[in-house]
Amino acid sequence: MKLYGHPLSTCTRKVLCTLAEKGHTAEFVFIDFAKNEQKQPAHLARQPFGVVPVLEDDDFGLYESRAIIRYLDARLSGPALTPSNVRERALMDQWISVEQGNFSGPVMKAVMHVMFAPMRGEAVDPAIVAEGKAGGARVLDVLEKALADCEYLAGGFSLADICYLPYLEYAFATGMGEIITERPNVNRWWQRISARPTWQKTIGKAD
Amino acid sequence: MKLYGHPLSTCTRKVLCTLAEKGHTAEFVFIDFAKNEQKQPAHLARQPFGVVPVLEDDDFGLYESRAIIRYLDARLSGPALTPSNVRERALMDQWISVEQGNFSGPVMKAVMHVMFAPMRGEAVDPAIVAEGKAGGARVLDVLEKALADCEYLAGGFSLADICYLPYLEYAFATGMGEIITERPNVNRWWQRISARPTWQKTIGKAD
Repeated sequence: MKLYGHPLSTCTRKVLCTLAEKGHTAEFVFIDFAKNEQKQPAHLARQPFGVVPVLEDDDFGLYESRAIIRYLDARLSGPALTPSNVRERALMDQWISVEQGNFSGPVMKAVMHVMFAPMRGEAVDPAIVAEGKAGGARVLDVLEKALADCEYLAGGFSLADICYLPYLEYAFATGMGEIITERPNVNRWWQRISARPTWQKTIGKAD
Repeated sequence: MKLYGHPLSTCTRKVLCTLAEKGHTAEFVFIDFAKNEQKQPAHLARQPFGVVPVLEDDDFGLYESRAIIRYLDARLSGPALTPSNVRERALMDQWISVEQGNFSGPVMKAVMHVMFAPMRGEAVDPAIVAEGKAGGARVLDVLEKALADCEYLAGGFSLADICYLPYLEYAFATGMGEIITERPNVNRWWQRISARPTWQKTIGKAD
């Protein structure tokens, strides 16, 4: 299998973490954003929206990280990352949808601003940061209740937990970590899932 | 089962269409947007983000339409709406993710503007309509290629087709239908899926 992506991309990281959890690897093809490779014809033939990641499994091409990780979980041996119980699976799907629809958008808007404004010689705008924190906090308030009686979002560790990891990681990296640490259940969950060797490997802090 | 929703809500319609395809019904609990019921405590206890739909299956509550329709497909008897083939299922997941991430947002921003600007006594802004059409068309260009050799998005009729139906329906209702009709494969697909008795029932044009 080949994985086209970038090691700093949140969506690529979901796929790398899933591969690591399954005990598998894929040939990594680096798409160089600095050269705008994601918008060039070779990549657009794989991913018509010009983003990463893309998985190629022989002649089968697939994009959208949340689809790729579901595919890898079904396709590969290794520990199941999707609950077998139909209600727990439904909760996994619910939390993945909340992540895609409500969480990652506002959080990443602020993250990208904090990371790239200085490179453009601009000051960081506190209003953009506050808006991203508020959007993220709105979801984390809901997760705080959901995590009151359980260690993970949907039964055991699942694809739902993996979907939040990259955004939580970047929230810390850009000074927005308090939206996590000020919520005890969310903070314990974050500590638990981010300590996994598979995540540490994904972000380059372990082999 | 109880379904809390509104018959004009796109996300409620996905669930109603799925129930109809499975040959089942649920007790429908009307959430009155005119009374802002979706933001009141009784509903927020079911859906903390204050939107519809919500499914209750005995003591199990579930929200996010794309999670609810997956749950109903797994939970209920009736025709399977998820491919059994792992690659076709992956494509279903890919197209659902593209709908949620790229399609419904821009299209519905324009739809809501066209529907509600006149009620507020405002003129329709052609720039907002053009932006929504461009966002929708960008995805439909990709679907036009994907539908060149197949009748549905992921093997047979599936949850992926259901996810696009409500937005395509509203695009027509608000004068943006040409983004569909000017693409032959997309248009044939739209004709095929919208003619299903289950969809006609969902939008109140058949019993």
